[in-house]
Amino acid sequence: MKIVVDCYGGDYSPQETVKGCLLALMQNQDINLVLTGNAVELTNLVGGKFDGRIEYLNASEVITNLDVPTTAIRTKKDSSLVVALDRVKNDDECVGMVSSGSTGAVLTGAVLKIGRIEGVSRPALLPLLPTLNGGKVLLIDCGANVDCKPAMLVQFAYLAISYANSVLGISSPRVALLSNGTEDKKGNEFTKQVFELLKQEPINFVGNMEARDILSGSYDIVVADGMYGNIALKACEGTATTMLKMIKQEISKGFFTKLGALLAKPAFRRVKSRMDYNQNGGAPFVGINKILIKAHGASKANSICCAIEQVKEMHKSNFINKIKDTLPRNNEQ
Amino acid sequence: MKIVVDCYGGDYSPQETVKGCLLALMQNQDINLVLTGNAVELTNLVGGKFDGRIEYLNASEVITNLDVPTTAIRTKKDSSLVVALDRVKNDDECVGMVSSGSTGAVLTGAVLKIGRIEGVSRPALLPLLPTLNGGKVLLIDCGANVDCKPAMLVQFAYLAISYANSVLGISSPRVALLSNGTEDKKGNEFTKQVFELLKQEPINFVGNMEARDILSGSYDIVVADGMYGNIALKACEGTATTMLKMIKQEISKGFFTKLGALLAKPAFRRVKSRMDYNQNGGAPFVGINKILIKAHGASKANSICCAIEQVKEMHKSNFINKIKDTLPRNNEQ
Repeated sequence: MKIVVDCYGGDYSPQETVKGCLLALMQNQDINLVLTGNAVELTNLVGGKFDGRIEYLNASEVITNLDVPTTAIRTKKDSSLVVALDRVKNDDECVGMVSSGSTGAVLTGAVLKIGRIEGVSRPALLPLLPTLNGGKVLLIDCGANVDCKPAMLVQFAYLAISYANSVLGISSPRVALLSNGTEDKKGNEFTKQVFELLKQEPINFVGNMEARDILSGSYDIVVADGMYGNIALKACEGTATTMLKMIKQEISKGFFTKLGALLAKPAFRRVKSRMDYNQNGGAPFVGINKILIKAHGASKANSICCAIEQVKEMHKSNFINKIKDTLPRNNEQ
Repeated sequence: MKIVVDCYGGDYSPQETVKGCLLALMQNQDINLVLTGNAVELTNLVGGKFDGRIEYLNASEVITNLDVPTTAIRTKKDSSLVVALDRVKNDDECVGMVSSGSTGAVLTGAVLKIGRIEGVSRPALLPLLPTLNGGKVLLIDCGANVDCKPAMLVQFAYLAISYANSVLGISSPRVALLSNGTEDKKGNEFTKQVFELLKQEPINFVGNMEARDILSGSYDIVVADGMYGNIALKACEGTATTMLKMIKQEISKGFFTKLGALLAKPAFRRVKSRMDYNQNGGAPFVGINKILIKAHGASKANSICCAIEQVKEMHKSNFINKIKDTLPRNNEQ
């Protein structure tokens, strides 16, 4: 199977992106890659390895975080991102793509170029976060749609259920609504409307939940509007980072605590790796006609490799068709 | 100065609440307390200590989390909370109060009984969170108002500025708006409107900020609608708890990591104490005519003591009058 990788636009592009590609090719005999960007530079970085399994698709421009997404997609037609999107859209052999470029441009471009699955109103970002019991929780939407109507969140639930069914093998995922309390009456006007809609759906809706329980392992899917979801996701990220830094600060204050930290280092490394959801790939952008993984802007080789493997897993689990089967009919908003 | 303490309604009431009161009396010669609740039980718990500095105000009922706040305030007139609110309202000597009871009931009761400061549209919850550099950040509103109009957030900013000015001694606090990115154009329709309003005010408005930077120390005040703020606050809380549990899980996996953790224990304890903002008191409910600290439901003696001391500090810094001076005129919404 062919997977397209936008090799520019990330913080460590193209070096780390290419390294990630090579890692993925080494670990996955069943994939071939199409790399987009400066073909000469990319060819040099690859250095003749994996001949026959890599295709170079030249692109002379790069879309950055400073570009206005919609304008950039329209005007930078020869950017590594747009070239990647066009290829994925037009080539049936290409099952999906990975980009660590500007989130706004990647999402806008994906909707404009690859297009939405019929019946999907708004595609959404669906990161997988680590839970305390070693599992995963799906948080949807995390920022693609900052102004939502209640019915959109019902679709988000179905998109995440499709993922849980096909990729994670969870047949009846526990769906909860992000709110300010667990009781049925909690929430603001918006979430109360969403609550009533979700209650009517033939899904395993377990009710309202609080942001403090996102990582608890009590839920498989947390549904939120893109603004709430973004705030929750980033608050989790920020607290994890802050705590690791605070631990460092406090440990450095004494000899014994330093010694102890040295001995406990492997444990910390494991916690850091568990909490760093970016390290394990990227966030699927779901509801479009192909598989797309938005890798973090700061992705290094390992994350890119994981993101490529995510595309492979999603394709093997028949994710796109699962969405089409799962979405209720006549649900276009 | 007299401070009223609602001794029932918390998870560890009245035992821990009373212990906290005794601690506060011991550490603060300049305060007297009025304890509300079952006077016989309270008298027994106090055991004759601090004679002359404690007044017992009997109340035969307790409002719980199961009660509907507005109904409970109206019907349970002889509850420890309502009796406390009435006393604070009517007795000029009582400068403020502490309650670890049902958040909904405490906030509703405070508005109904104590009343809003003239010109304040919506009082708000203002917790102080720890920052990486050892300082504090004020997050307003954290759940009192889940359906806000843009202008309300401007008032929240002024309420927090009053606190920063008077209690923290920060003359020109850096005010940021919780959004999904730092750029001026980020946000949803609601926050974009708030952004435009805040920009016009004669305050130190530094723009949009992301939830991942709440604890960074880059801001003194983070303004949010009560729903966003609640989600951000609880996501921070939940991640901190989850990480400490994950660290425990990972440490228990090996002999050396266990030994290391033992040596590093003082450092962990300090991190835990820094992150646990409840341990250092409660969240001021600001914009009403008296000082009110909403202590966490799970408050133990130390938190109650800190919450009482918060009331004292806020009174000494002339917080209520500072609000009246700071609020722009004709700002009622």
